[in-house]
Amino acid sequence: MKLHPMWQDYPDLAKQLTTTLHLMEDVVKLKNKKVESAVLDMIHAGGKLLRPAYQLLFAQFGPEQDEKKATALAASIEMLHTATLIHDDIVDDSELRRGLPTIRSTFGNDTAVYAGDYLFICCFKLLSDYSTSLRSLQLNSRSMEKILDGELGQMDDRYKLDQTVEEYLENISGKTAELFALSCSVGAFESGNSERFAKKAGMIGQNIGIAFQIMDDLLDYDAASDTLGKPVLEDVRQGVYSLPLIYAINQDNEELQHLLEKKNQLTAEDALAVQRLVHQLGGTTYAQQLASDYTDQALKDIRKLPDNYFNTKETLERLTRQILLRTN
Amino acid sequence: MKLHPMWQDYPDLAKQLTTTLHLMEDVVKLKNKKVESAVLDMIHAGGKLLRPAYQLLFAQFGPEQDEKKATALAASIEMLHTATLIHDDIVDDSELRRGLPTIRSTFGNDTAVYAGDYLFICCFKLLSDYSTSLRSLQLNSRSMEKILDGELGQMDDRYKLDQTVEEYLENISGKTAELFALSCSVGAFESGNSERFAKKAGMIGQNIGIAFQIMDDLLDYDAASDTLGKPVLEDVRQGVYSLPLIYAINQDNEELQHLLEKKNQLTAEDALAVQRLVHQLGGTTYAQQLASDYTDQALKDIRKLPDNYFNTKETLERLTRQILLRTN
Repeated sequence: MKLHPMWQDYPDLAKQLTTTLHLMEDVVKLKNKKVESAVLDMIHAGGKLLRPAYQLLFAQFGPEQDEKKATALAASIEMLHTATLIHDDIVDDSELRRGLPTIRSTFGNDTAVYAGDYLFICCFKLLSDYSTSLRSLQLNSRSMEKILDGELGQMDDRYKLDQTVEEYLENISGKTAELFALSCSVGAFESGNSERFAKKAGMIGQNIGIAFQIMDDLLDYDAASDTLGKPVLEDVRQGVYSLPLIYAINQDNEELQHLLEKKNQLTAEDALAVQRLVHQLGGTTYAQQLASDYTDQALKDIRKLPDNYFNTKETLERLTRQILLRTN
Repeated sequence: MKLHPMWQDYPDLAKQLTTTLHLMEDVVKLKNKKVESAVLDMIHAGGKLLRPAYQLLFAQFGPEQDEKKATALAASIEMLHTATLIHDDIVDDSELRRGLPTIRSTFGNDTAVYAGDYLFICCFKLLSDYSTSLRSLQLNSRSMEKILDGELGQMDDRYKLDQTVEEYLENISGKTAELFALSCSVGAFESGNSERFAKKAGMIGQNIGIAFQIMDDLLDYDAASDTLGKPVLEDVRQGVYSLPLIYAINQDNEELQHLLEKKNQLTAEDALAVQRLVHQLGGTTYAQQLASDYTDQALKDIRKLPDNYFNTKETLERLTRQILLRTN
């Protein structure tokens, strides 16, 4: 089991993330070996572990330094994240995830439903075993509710041509940013910080999460299919319109309108035309700018954090710049 | 919203169960109104609320009487139960549940995945808001794990002709009995009883749950299809073999063997033949006897419970006799 190479530049964090991965492996224990190995494969498929990383970093601000607890809670967040991915793949009929076949495509929807449920349970188990207070579990359940609301919002807005930027931001606030926010706030809170500091940490996570999702959505308009492990604009074919496209649609271009009316009948050639139009109509530039705004806000708030023994502030800034501004 | 008529004979409990139902309604709040109403329909479809009832009864044994808390925790158990039903219906491709179309058949698998997830979250929210101690959440997550292991076991044993009675009992111990056990133990524990008493309560729930599932499985060999809202021996067609059939298979009857080889090609006529053979080979008598044994054990343990102001012991005995021995 290998950690994503990006962590080579963060040796202390890399060590903790390796422990987190091992913990996740240890928790997964099912009599049904088929589902067990499906779940383990998904864990090993090499997610970046960004959410656990932020959780671990914010846990360095507290007066209570307990590495076992911090890594267990980090594992719980990643398991929750993985659970939502497995269930999303059912909803989206996805074939590939992280370049590998999805659980639903390999084992069928029935196994995928239970595999996702099982990871929810594992998350819940770790949380109830390692949290100091019921408060974290309350925060967690409220976040889960927001995440689901965001996913449902996205499901509801499929093929919706009059989607606003605000609706998009609301959906990704739930779907993606909420889990970043939770990671930061639980990390801060469970290491003994005040609820007020935890809230501040959560706001930073929220802005990072929004910028992260916008950047992720931008990749669809930049990268070739094979680098992402899925066909060009597969999301668009499925009716999931992200920021660059939403902005472009709002420019009232007839050709684009016409292409999108094809819905899931969009050909590979059509997809390339959509990509080109989104660029021409300024969708990618706009999205890039919005991502920068959220990133700047996050970086500004990070710089206001207190100094500590671990130089966490500096690490947070470096990591955030690296993933959101692609600087090293 | 109406309570199941069986509770007319238990006026105090009926009042608490009505509060429980209202609480469940209040908790369900989603921006997506389609999923919200799907979830509410499922809640209103008139489950018997047996698990909340046992939880509420065991909560009467504790020194801490807090009706709001007791009903909230009872609601959490029923929501967990409902969540598992919704996901089971996806796994089993079920068309009907409680005589009504399932969420998956009305809205599709995607909505059903999220609807079930949402009820898990609601359960988790109520638990973290109303439990006094993290211990209940630990018990809950462990029970969820066992429930899932039982469901997976059943999924794995589909069409398995050499299933033993022990394997069947292990699957239903997880799939059904665990939630009864959890209801009783959390009810006892969160009202301020000792962990030892809660464990005893859990054992009673476990035996009730096993007897309940056997009785439920026996219905397939007794009742006409329309009373249950599903076709005769639909489970058998899907490869889910329950105790009466497992016992009958073990009698090495060639005709039965031959019929079961048809797997999901079993016709309505075949199903009637299977029903008849299971009776002739003693499967129903055997299952009836085993259910009686578990019921007797539960009743014996109930009679050993302490007396209290609410005469809970007597109510528990009456309720258990009513649902498991069909006496009034």
